[in-house]
Amino acid sequence: MSGAVPAIVLEDPADPRLAPYAAMRERDLVGRAGRFVVEGEVALRLMLSPAARFRIESVLLAPERLPGLAEALAGLGAPVYVAGKPVMSAVTGFPIHRGVLAIGLRGEEPDASPLVPPSPRSALVLGLAGLTNHDNVGGLFRNAAAFGADAVLLDAESCDPLYRKAIRVSAGAALTVPFARLASGSDWVAVAAGLNLEPLALSPAGTEEVSTLVPPRRTLLLVGSEGPGLPEHLLARMRGLRIAMAPGFDSLNVATAAAIALHRVAGRDRLAGP
Amino acid sequence: MSGAVPAIVLEDPADPRLAPYAAMRERDLVGRAGRFVVEGEVALRLMLSPAARFRIESVLLAPERLPGLAEALAGLGAPVYVAGKPVMSAVTGFPIHRGVLAIGLRGEEPDASPLVPPSPRSALVLGLAGLTNHDNVGGLFRNAAAFGADAVLLDAESCDPLYRKAIRVSAGAALTVPFARLASGSDWVAVAAGLNLEPLALSPAGTEEVSTLVPPRRTLLLVGSEGPGLPEHLLARMRGLRIAMAPGFDSLNVATAAAIALHRVAGRDRLAGP
Repeated sequence: MSGAVPAIVLEDPADPRLAPYAAMRERDLVGRAGRFVVEGEVALRLMLSPAARFRIESVLLAPERLPGLAEALAGLGAPVYVAGKPVMSAVTGFPIHRGVLAIGLRGEEPDASPLVPPSPRSALVLGLAGLTNHDNVGGLFRNAAAFGADAVLLDAESCDPLYRKAIRVSAGAALTVPFARLASGSDWVAVAAGLNLEPLALSPAGTEEVSTLVPPRRTLLLVGSEGPGLPEHLLARMRGLRIAMAPGFDSLNVATAAAIALHRVAGRDRLAGP
Repeated sequence: MSGAVPAIVLEDPADPRLAPYAAMRERDLVGRAGRFVVEGEVALRLMLSPAARFRIESVLLAPERLPGLAEALAGLGAPVYVAGKPVMSAVTGFPIHRGVLAIGLRGEEPDASPLVPPSPRSALVLGLAGLTNHDNVGGLFRNAAAFGADAVLLDAESCDPLYRKAIRVSAGAALTVPFARLASGSDWVAVAAGLNLEPLALSPAGTEEVSTLVPPRRTLLLVGSEGPGLPEHLLARMRGLRIAMAPGFDSLNVATAAAIALHRVAGRDRLAGP
């Protein structure tokens, strides 16, 4: 039958094939040794699309979710397990409502260089410095995707974009936007120079307002965490970009601020007309 | 002693003076008959500042929080209760970590008209149509404050900006940005006309791109919920504003999209230069 998926029904929460799904919240904290969890139909369909950067190791569905996903899963070279929601919940350790899970494989962590289009082509890269909040990292990936950024670079302190909550808040963009992690202690100015990018620091202390910026052809837009922001020693060494706000207002959410800057920097060639 | 606050120590979770703090999560759902809960030091300090639009009925602090807040609370014409965190947690029904709560009074719900500067002065009003997600409403208030909007108008379907989570996500802006609720069935086009505002609908279906918009002097920027967006019958009757995005990308978070539009529409006179 066309579109049929050879699903494997599992009834024992202790089945070793379900081990990667076990104790999901606890594992969020300690990491998964090369694996990550995909939740929900939107994220699973992204993982099955050509846009996804990662391979699927296995899929775990509640029985009632199989028919709707069978066509999308046809041809997947990985096992599709089916288990009732009580079994799924017993495995993961909390109530599973949507009944759609999968395990992704992180693969080799890429270097930054192959992710960035070579000069003289235009390039737009978002740099995250010390972003330790999963909501913010997820929001930043969503906005990077919205404005066609080529890649996201994260310093060693920033948190994992493939953490469950970050994927969810990113609306799946963490699965599609290329990203690379810099070595601990990397200098952003040197990283930008090595990639032929002009670094712009988004900061309330910046001197150029975003709406009058003439976007560089090859940009590294660097953002820091909401509290401390980017460190002084970086701000002193690159152009600073600020967003004009109402007098007395403290600051925007970092993902929101990045969206305003990305919308400006991306320019017309990168965005859909008119 | 200067700065001393006559705090009232309470030890019985059943004390009737603590009734407005009881069963906090359950009450979130059913409403509080003219009251709302203020959580945390940032929100309490905003409530004590001249920027706040609402009066405090009472404050409830863990004993260790009193010294740091005593000066700010001096002169408050409302009781300050002190109770240990175990008592606070027993009253509210969940663990209280920060030890700072207060009850605010909603007061009379204002009409829209007195909140909007009269013509010919410039005006910027954000309209929320069918925004039922507290995170989004909180984010929209934060962004309205960031770009100096004069007021926020909500239709009958949009959720309460004074819900605990919305206040938190707004970074307190729900306590300071004037808002009014429209009567059920109000027509946004008529509302805009009555206030002498030019309505702009923010929508992927809009025909004008935000970065080339010449902002009207008096604007009502209307946003809808992320899923369905603004209804067709409204889009057909007002100028539509779109944000150019990468081809194939679905949509931005509604609060993020509104921030990009507000930054453009607010214009230089409303924002801190240069």
